[in-house]
Amino acid sequence: MSSIYDSGLEPVNANYAVLSPLDFIARTASVYPDYPAVIHGSIRYTWQQTYERCCRLASALTRRGIGRGDTVAAMLPNIPAMLECHFGVPMTGAVLNALNIRLDAEAIAFMLGHGEASVIIVDREFGGVIRDAISRLDNPPLVIDVDDPEYGEGEATSDIDYEAFLQEGEADFAWSYPPDEWNAISLSYTSGTTGNPKGVVYHHRGAFQNAIGNQAVWGMKQHPVYLWTLPMFHCNGWCFPWTVTAMAGTHVCLRKVDPVRILELIDEHRVTHLCGAPIVLNGLLNVPEKDRTAIDHEVHAMTAGAAPPAQVIGAIEEMGIRITHVYGLTESYGPVTVCAWKSRWDDLPLDERASYKARQGVRYHTLSGVMVGDPDTMEPVPKDGETIGEIFLRGNTVMKGYLKNPKATEEAFRGGWFHTGDLAAWHPDGYLDIKDRLKDIIISGGENISTIEVEGVIYRHPAVLEAAVVASPDEKWGETPCAFVTLKPDGPEVTEQELIRFCREKLAGFKVPKKIVFSDLPKTSTGKIQKFVLREEAKKLNQNTSD
Amino acid sequence: MSSIYDSGLEPVNANYAVLSPLDFIARTASVYPDYPAVIHGSIRYTWQQTYERCCRLASALTRRGIGRGDTVAAMLPNIPAMLECHFGVPMTGAVLNALNIRLDAEAIAFMLGHGEASVIIVDREFGGVIRDAISRLDNPPLVIDVDDPEYGEGEATSDIDYEAFLQEGEADFAWSYPPDEWNAISLSYTSGTTGNPKGVVYHHRGAFQNAIGNQAVWGMKQHPVYLWTLPMFHCNGWCFPWTVTAMAGTHVCLRKVDPVRILELIDEHRVTHLCGAPIVLNGLLNVPEKDRTAIDHEVHAMTAGAAPPAQVIGAIEEMGIRITHVYGLTESYGPVTVCAWKSRWDDLPLDERASYKARQGVRYHTLSGVMVGDPDTMEPVPKDGETIGEIFLRGNTVMKGYLKNPKATEEAFRGGWFHTGDLAAWHPDGYLDIKDRLKDIIISGGENISTIEVEGVIYRHPAVLEAAVVASPDEKWGETPCAFVTLKPDGPEVTEQELIRFCREKLAGFKVPKKIVFSDLPKTSTGKIQKFVLREEAKKLNQNTSD
Repeated sequence: MSSIYDSGLEPVNANYAVLSPLDFIARTASVYPDYPAVIHGSIRYTWQQTYERCCRLASALTRRGIGRGDTVAAMLPNIPAMLECHFGVPMTGAVLNALNIRLDAEAIAFMLGHGEASVIIVDREFGGVIRDAISRLDNPPLVIDVDDPEYGEGEATSDIDYEAFLQEGEADFAWSYPPDEWNAISLSYTSGTTGNPKGVVYHHRGAFQNAIGNQAVWGMKQHPVYLWTLPMFHCNGWCFPWTVTAMAGTHVCLRKVDPVRILELIDEHRVTHLCGAPIVLNGLLNVPEKDRTAIDHEVHAMTAGAAPPAQVIGAIEEMGIRITHVYGLTESYGPVTVCAWKSRWDDLPLDERASYKARQGVRYHTLSGVMVGDPDTMEPVPKDGETIGEIFLRGNTVMKGYLKNPKATEEAFRGGWFHTGDLAAWHPDGYLDIKDRLKDIIISGGENISTIEVEGVIYRHPAVLEAAVVASPDEKWGETPCAFVTLKPDGPEVTEQELIRFCREKLAGFKVPKKIVFSDLPKTSTGKIQKFVLREEAKKLNQNTSD
Repeated sequence: MSSIYDSGLEPVNANYAVLSPLDFIARTASVYPDYPAVIHGSIRYTWQQTYERCCRLASALTRRGIGRGDTVAAMLPNIPAMLECHFGVPMTGAVLNALNIRLDAEAIAFMLGHGEASVIIVDREFGGVIRDAISRLDNPPLVIDVDDPEYGEGEATSDIDYEAFLQEGEADFAWSYPPDEWNAISLSYTSGTTGNPKGVVYHHRGAFQNAIGNQAVWGMKQHPVYLWTLPMFHCNGWCFPWTVTAMAGTHVCLRKVDPVRILELIDEHRVTHLCGAPIVLNGLLNVPEKDRTAIDHEVHAMTAGAAPPAQVIGAIEEMGIRITHVYGLTESYGPVTVCAWKSRWDDLPLDERASYKARQGVRYHTLSGVMVGDPDTMEPVPKDGETIGEIFLRGNTVMKGYLKNPKATEEAFRGGWFHTGDLAAWHPDGYLDIKDRLKDIIISGGENISTIEVEGVIYRHPAVLEAAVVASPDEKWGETPCAFVTLKPDGPEVTEQELIRFCREKLAGFKVPKKIVFSDLPKTSTGKIQKFVLREEAKKLNQNTSD
């Protein structure tokens, strides 16, 4: 069945180019060479300078034998070197493995070994961990030491200094695009609560697409000023190193999340955009009035992770920050769904408005499909806003797969969709509303209890800073909800019984926590609450009670 | 040289999807079903309705046997049916051939024959031309008659009525994406001043990319209100049927360019964006004060074609319309370079600002390369703002090629670049500045004379409405400039000698027109001035003078 369109119209050099985010920095440096690219403490780089630093990095790595299919690891906070790695490493054809800076030596050693890193670029703050990790490896990578003046402490982890290394390379290095847009650009290890972490691989095509998707959902104009409150090691900063560069914006670096400093930087540099877990936004809310720099211009914040309680969303918006709520995973290049806002919701009371905003929404322009269905049969659930199913994703911004793990890859992609392991209800308007992780949901007397729903109620109590609800084994009901709560340091007092009574007013009886424990909450290195630790604790508490 | 990234990470259904603008309407209809999609006279369609109409069109065409690789032609002004064809036709796998509604029967007959159209969808205004064209064909296509209430005249061209035809199809038709993103989506014939028109073929990948590129360069937010002053048949409306749909905007239809009506519609529907040749903007400027609806909100206009004279740009901006100047060709999906604006130019005097804005700028995010070089050797010219060379383009938004014309395709793509046939200088900042068509430039005593530069000076005279400069044969100099000028109907008077004197004050002597002829200017159906006609006329004038 050949048609007139099937011959003489093949791809050639003039009309086919691989999609790659590397193209963004080439364009931006050429069009806006003297525009600000990077702000970090007293450091200022233009786009010309940043581009040349990336080229030098690529050139120096190439001279050391790094090339296509090699792995270059980075143990860096949100500093210029980390941004430069997002371009300089793939310019060589190598794959960037941005490591979670909060991990310990054992985890890092596993990742360096599994990813077969040839080079690691390390900030001095993490020198100890890296030295320890490397001592465990048979084939240690070449170590490059980054001496960030904004840190200014610590010892060199290597006698190869990052700045000196850049000088080994050429500023006009003739880097090349990957031969195939499906080629790997980055490797990111999942936090993996059980078993070894899995290595999620992204390709150039997907990175290009999600970078553009971020821009489209935000309707981002040229020259955004982007504050790095989200770790760049986390899903490659949700692809924002590439998005902000495409739009010739300014990357405002930040070594660590400090709410007072964030508000100062927003004001000082007229920051227009930032991303972060709800806990980052929560942090801004809890800055005492006297330390708070007011926001007097339009700031947009993208947030994801655990759904922020409606209360937090409402309070942040009152501070002058417009929230865009997104959802995604390491496996999906960061965010791939967005709570696309409708103007008709603007006039709702804050509380109702915030509860609309708390939904995870609809697919990005650059994702092909999202579906909520039965975890096993993959039958879609009805769009009734009630029935809970697993979220499935498919499209160009779903990972290539797990590195050296075809079995896990195949399982994750079973039936033509990526299985997220997240549970959601699907509203009649097609918006997702995440209810729980597949492994977190509580089943009590045969009824599903969304731990997120219960947490949302607890958060509404003025004394509560953080809350996590997990299943506690129960002879009669199978499971019942148990809540772990951190109170605000300067907040009102509240007892377990008072808080349970508070929940009873707002929840069906079977959803009310049987027990509330006041304590700090254990968190992963990316700030997620570790519910499996709390589940163990709840189990122990239960045994003690039964004893 | 295989690496750890080369196995177990192949594309599968979960992580690979073809890039296609069809996805935009699927997403928008699902997320914003009740948002306004189309405004046309008293007609209003929501996105749900527009999507269903597209599905019905695809379904009805499929039932008539139309499928992958077939051609469906359309002879339609900017009305809802034309927008629907941009989705409904490719949903069947067929290719949309949007015909230039200003062409005559002979040209149309050639295109229908060459493109092997199986179906043609015709507005009654063009029934006569189409009947005539079809009578010349051995294999006439199926004709579908569009009876637009905004036209309300003419006779049916066929007993198949478009609205009845839609009813043959299913609103929930299960259309499919193309198996390959390289598959053809549209066919557009170039105006071709000599020889037969060439059939430019676009693919889904390129249409997706340029649609996104339009959005990125404009920093377009969700829900633009787009006025159709640019013909949708012209390079598929520069891909804006897809861009505006992706952003869940509103398409405000317009059967024909009427400056008074345009200003009314901008005000009535709070239009945010429009595109058009400089002549369209010129038309707005020439609306008498009493007929002019003032603009009191932000309106963005993209313009291309012949570079608008600085004067026109300045005056339009004073009206409240912000101009974005772009450049492209039928072969490049419409615009692929943009005069990316720099804030430092904001404070320049209007005249200087306008002359910056008159440049054609730099590549879109979605084009890979632009280069100015020697037309034969393809050696890049120096970026000195002076040396003239041909513009070369390459990337995903360069056509698949010319239909059934591998020789022309090969020539156009010689050396890995698309040869535009346009001449430009390249400024030190990398911005293009178009000087002429390769075939229009005047060579006088061995010196290049840019006809566009000379026209720019003539346009600055207050009496001038339109101007075109062409080469006139000259025994001594080889060629000399000859100007054809249309004066404003109500403008001041001016003589040939006065206008020549005016030019002499502003141009080097050898660039000053030796002769100025006051007359109407011959134009192509897309509004471009036909310089080859004027060249013939100049030649005749010269002979008469010599006689």
